[in-house]
Amino acid sequence: MLQSKLFPKTKKEAPKEAESINHKLLVRAGFMDQLMAGSWTLLPLGFKVVSKINNIIREELNKTGAQEVLMPLLHPKEIWNETGRWDKADEIMYKLKDSRNKEFALSFTHEEIFLDLIRKHLLSYKDLPIALYHFSTKFRNELRARSGILRGREFLMKDLYSIHATEKDFWMYYKEVKKAYSRIFTRIGFKFRITEAEGGVFTENKTHEFQVISDGGEDTIFYCDKCSWGENEEVCKGKEGGNCPSCKKGKIVKSKSIEVGNIFPFGTYYSEKMGVYYTDSKGKKKPVWFGSYGIGSTRAMGAIVEVSNDDKGIIWYPQVAPLAVHLIELGKNANSVYEKLIKAGIEVLYDDRSVSAGEKFADADLIGIPVRLTVSAKTGDKIEWKNRDSQETELFSLSQVVNRLK
Amino acid sequence: MLQSKLFPKTKKEAPKEAESINHKLLVRAGFMDQLMAGSWTLLPLGFKVVSKINNIIREELNKTGAQEVLMPLLHPKEIWNETGRWDKADEIMYKLKDSRNKEFALSFTHEEIFLDLIRKHLLSYKDLPIALYHFSTKFRNELRARSGILRGREFLMKDLYSIHATEKDFWMYYKEVKKAYSRIFTRIGFKFRITEAEGGVFTENKTHEFQVISDGGEDTIFYCDKCSWGENEEVCKGKEGGNCPSCKKGKIVKSKSIEVGNIFPFGTYYSEKMGVYYTDSKGKKKPVWFGSYGIGSTRAMGAIVEVSNDDKGIIWYPQVAPLAVHLIELGKNANSVYEKLIKAGIEVLYDDRSVSAGEKFADADLIGIPVRLTVSAKTGDKIEWKNRDSQETELFSLSQVVNRLK
Repeated sequence: MLQSKLFPKTKKEAPKEAESINHKLLVRAGFMDQLMAGSWTLLPLGFKVVSKINNIIREELNKTGAQEVLMPLLHPKEIWNETGRWDKADEIMYKLKDSRNKEFALSFTHEEIFLDLIRKHLLSYKDLPIALYHFSTKFRNELRARSGILRGREFLMKDLYSIHATEKDFWMYYKEVKKAYSRIFTRIGFKFRITEAEGGVFTENKTHEFQVISDGGEDTIFYCDKCSWGENEEVCKGKEGGNCPSCKKGKIVKSKSIEVGNIFPFGTYYSEKMGVYYTDSKGKKKPVWFGSYGIGSTRAMGAIVEVSNDDKGIIWYPQVAPLAVHLIELGKNANSVYEKLIKAGIEVLYDDRSVSAGEKFADADLIGIPVRLTVSAKTGDKIEWKNRDSQETELFSLSQVVNRLK
Repeated sequence: MLQSKLFPKTKKEAPKEAESINHKLLVRAGFMDQLMAGSWTLLPLGFKVVSKINNIIREELNKTGAQEVLMPLLHPKEIWNETGRWDKADEIMYKLKDSRNKEFALSFTHEEIFLDLIRKHLLSYKDLPIALYHFSTKFRNELRARSGILRGREFLMKDLYSIHATEKDFWMYYKEVKKAYSRIFTRIGFKFRITEAEGGVFTENKTHEFQVISDGGEDTIFYCDKCSWGENEEVCKGKEGGNCPSCKKGKIVKSKSIEVGNIFPFGTYYSEKMGVYYTDSKGKKKPVWFGSYGIGSTRAMGAIVEVSNDDKGIIWYPQVAPLAVHLIELGKNANSVYEKLIKAGIEVLYDDRSVSAGEKFADADLIGIPVRLTVSAKTGDKIEWKNRDSQETELFSLSQVVNRLK
């Protein structure tokens, strides 16, 4: 990708209204643009990051046997009425009427829509379990959209829904998703904790949240300063300043964190309300056990920026960086290097612009691609390698560079 | 993918209200499910087909230099008012108010939203051209949603928007997209014609449509019965029964066709209304030249089914088939064959169910995967190969099968 063609150019100043780090940096570096409060366009670089996050999620969920679908966004009132959430969730739902006065809600979640789909197809215990997920737009009428892309009125979410014949089967899968989520957030690069939480308009049961440790978040959690991250739920039950109930060595500390995922055990509450029954091996009708599991993928992008940045810009984790390498040419054409990197299957942002070295380096730091390669008269037939998160530079031949990148 | 785990099972009967072939077959074969009139869930097999169509579109658009983004679906009234389309397109727009009485429309297209994004970033002629596209949901308040997934109230569309400094640059890119579209529809497998059309609520200029020849469509076009498809626009100007103005050999015939793509030249109409100006090399402010280009990717799936089926089911074109091979085991476990095919990088639907041979073959014909492989006592250590669009069967060794598939 040629930087001279990339839309848009970076900005020197953050928008005046921007308060959070992700808002400032993602807008300045050209990853996203605000249409209105709480509503964002993913620009080419931002789209690439979110696609990489989504692909990690997709790979790990497929391992659990879940199948990808795509459910509609405009939902009829009647289905939401069956569980009482048309009224109960009124505050956060966008609602509308069509020209024939039929009432709809915009998707703020899909539990009812998933169960409506299932009850049209479900027959017997042999059809269970079923686990379906999709990446789709969610709309939430937030009174105060804030924190950049962390809390929007319209955002991208992966939501997974599963149904099971028995309570035991359900909890087995619930734990499997918990592990899949841990793999997902580990692969993205997060330091996170799993915590217990209230279920809001979703459920009265206890739910689990995946919280990224960050000062930019809206939530407060307690965690151990010694234990490895996200492995032991007991820790979150400790008290601030007290000993860790798990490792017995660390102290419990407090932090403002960012929720990037949550998982909800619903039992048979929704399926009984909506009449989602299966026939067991003895021919008896029983309600299915039901759970749902969300990850905010645009929010995850914002969370990365909140926790991985410096005063110059973003520092992308390699797995989710928009591109692997930022190639800078200074005075000397780097086109042949660019083409060889591309040929080796490496994703490159090639700064082919006629601007100053200072401007190029500042943009590279702002955009935050993990590896910066510089080709100039100074470097001769070598290439200067610098990691975004380090000050050191090293000189390598092109073939050494390709080997290191692979 | 194991057929025993695939959601949902096939259905023997089509829904009573289904009139069109795509509605009947895509529902029976388990590719899609109707939430309400004009609104469809893409089920696992349908999601795979649409993803393949989208990937072909993506690859060909990237070759034109277009960049992928994602724009919001909920749009503020003020922006739509700037071009007058808040009123002009009132009939097909879904509109709503939030709890603070602010008015919004759901995306039925994105011209205004794209130009609003551009005018915040555009400075000089050096920034042009810019071409951005996204795959996103469109909402259209159709009075009669019909023809299965061909005309929905909510559907998936790829829309591309481009702006240019001069009229000449604009038409060059317009022609490039026309060629990219021809490559896309050829790769999908369509027999199509490019026709001239009216622009509706989009433009008073002439536009171009990509029409798939089909009796299941809503449009009528004229085309030559001899010329190769989609190469010469002059043909569509001929009269039914007359000689083809292009090849001079064929006759012009009439057909009900399906529009799968359209491209719109807008000139500077929208950019003047919305104040999207750039500075030319002499420092003068000028409005940008603007075009938009759509492909209905869920509609394209429906169009394939309309034109490629028989009385037993769907016949997928190989490029967009949900999977490459349908592996059927009859009495004899085919797991080792399945694993070897997977290892060779081949996408397989493996019918591992304990049902009759008749049911398995009927499902294979209904689902329509291009190649059926059968492993049974009869075939010994060979595998029976049958193409979906042929009656002939052949016996091959596993390594022969793998070679033929590659």
